[in-house]
Amino acid sequence: MDHPRTVSELGEFGVIDRIAARIDAPPQPETWTGDDAAVLAAPGNRLLYTIDVLVEGVDFDFDYCLGSDVGHKAVAVATSDVAAMGGRARAAIVALSLPAHSLVSVVDGIVDGVVEAGRSFGVDLVGGDVSRASEISIAVAVIGTAATPVLRSGARPGDALCVTGTLGGAAAGLIALRRGLVGPGPTEGHPLPPALTRALEHLAARQLRPRPRLDEGVFLGEAGATAMIDVSDGLVADLKHLLTASGVGCRVELENLPVDPAIDALAHAVTDASIEPLDLALSGGEDLELLFTIRPERLDAIERLPTPARRIGWISEGAAFVGDQSLEDLEDAGWDHLLGR
Amino acid sequence: MDHPRTVSELGEFGVIDRIAARIDAPPQPETWTGDDAAVLAAPGNRLLYTIDVLVEGVDFDFDYCLGSDVGHKAVAVATSDVAAMGGRARAAIVALSLPAHSLVSVVDGIVDGVVEAGRSFGVDLVGGDVSRASEISIAVAVIGTAATPVLRSGARPGDALCVTGTLGGAAAGLIALRRGLVGPGPTEGHPLPPALTRALEHLAARQLRPRPRLDEGVFLGEAGATAMIDVSDGLVADLKHLLTASGVGCRVELENLPVDPAIDALAHAVTDASIEPLDLALSGGEDLELLFTIRPERLDAIERLPTPARRIGWISEGAAFVGDQSLEDLEDAGWDHLLGR
Repeated sequence: MDHPRTVSELGEFGVIDRIAARIDAPPQPETWTGDDAAVLAAPGNRLLYTIDVLVEGVDFDFDYCLGSDVGHKAVAVATSDVAAMGGRARAAIVALSLPAHSLVSVVDGIVDGVVEAGRSFGVDLVGGDVSRASEISIAVAVIGTAATPVLRSGARPGDALCVTGTLGGAAAGLIALRRGLVGPGPTEGHPLPPALTRALEHLAARQLRPRPRLDEGVFLGEAGATAMIDVSDGLVADLKHLLTASGVGCRVELENLPVDPAIDALAHAVTDASIEPLDLALSGGEDLELLFTIRPERLDAIERLPTPARRIGWISEGAAFVGDQSLEDLEDAGWDHLLGR
Repeated sequence: MDHPRTVSELGEFGVIDRIAARIDAPPQPETWTGDDAAVLAAPGNRLLYTIDVLVEGVDFDFDYCLGSDVGHKAVAVATSDVAAMGGRARAAIVALSLPAHSLVSVVDGIVDGVVEAGRSFGVDLVGGDVSRASEISIAVAVIGTAATPVLRSGARPGDALCVTGTLGGAAAGLIALRRGLVGPGPTEGHPLPPALTRALEHLAARQLRPRPRLDEGVFLGEAGATAMIDVSDGLVADLKHLLTASGVGCRVELENLPVDPAIDALAHAVTDASIEPLDLALSGGEDLELLFTIRPERLDAIERLPTPARRIGWISEGAAFVGDQSLEDLEDAGWDHLLGR
């Protein structure tokens, strides 16, 4: 078949061949795709090892994104876990589950996104597996290295609590995409003012094309961050993970939260009042920013980060407070996919 | 909720907690579950890295298997890729996709199967991810090590072509399970003779509880196997992969094929003539036996293998023959999941 249109016309080995064709030639003495397992030179230091899975209709939807967005994001979220350990990412393997009626163009787009994200983040795609399924899903496992991994468990009372970049943008982007204000389809209604269009495109990119903070993670590991986690489930949920692992409390100063300024533009664009910037910054997930703690005497170092970071509070003994609310009360606002929130 | 029955009652973090509770305490200075990524001491030699995904309704079906079978098999097939490189498996991470209505007992069964298979194969479960989905699927990524990995590409004319164990049993087991002759449900009709019951249980175990040939793989790597692959897609399909990677042909002697003797018992038990032992040995997948090549002067070594191996033919230049048929003609008989064969 010269131009197969669907995955069933292409077959499993046809899909594998298309992926294999996009995998770079490995350096000696490594072997990547084409054998039972990829062979890598054992990296020095300690090995980091993580996996993430994205599922159609849960983590992404082709109503508002392209195959290449899905491939990009799957690599980004797995690589972000390596960044959150203060590590460098080294290699990725991908398991792709595809319905037989999937369009080959969508599969090619996913593979494009994986390969291009890998190149952009310095992560080699070295192999994978393909299976039939009733919905598209993509699992990406990433290995990386770190001389001294930054765990979630090292925060101590008196540490500064900080976060890189801005929060809430990815969740706001999802709202904008779902409402068709921005995205691959035709947008409805009157043309938008250029400043609003720029804000919406920025938010869509935060949702569809997030970038793991790899350089920032390595920098923070070397600068002495005591604990670190990436903001994937939302600030409240991920802060809870860090506090629980460290056995500490905190006080978050709401006025210091780096709310993505583009969310205000979105709030003005939609007529109902459901876009609450602070809520999105607290409980919207997927920003892939780094939430970390550091001794106060080392706080100066964060001014030299490639992406600016801000101190949003302090680690304390005992209970955890966000503004004047307890973290427990806010926790239900976090994203829990299986509960369908 | 004291006794949540479904995954939606348990929530994503509830599922993760249940998995985390089954992960062993790591040795110093490693960190397994509970952080963004698992931290492992970088293993020596060269690193092997592989992923496999099993999907409900395609790779398994709860009509004939238990959750623990699924967990076991997912670890087994990924670990088998490490065995086929002559390597030792070191650690596994798991991405589990679950419908909200999945029973917690099924999820617990899958995790049981993963943990127990890992212990049995010497593979530590060190972390994972969970997502909602409309069908159950499980992706397992395994890392391993090998001083000198045995690639698919090293076969040379004159090499002996060999396979460990017996072939066709896993495919025959699937037929027996699907027909309800054996398995978790009540079996139909009259009680079976004990010898037939034993044969059917053996075949069901080959389908549901396959064991990667790890010791055999390491032994064969040290004994000088020139090329190796595991039989997962069927002998014909996997032989083709090995020959293509090596740029050689072969002559397979059909009379030397180690057809699983229990298949004869199944052929007698079913009334129609659809069970053809030789066909199952040639094109039935999932046996996880090792297909390998070795110089003839080293052929003696295979007699000391933990699982006996048999020479089934010779590597040649030019075309590939299985009996008097060309491999190309037989190739369509291989399992290609996406083509739905």
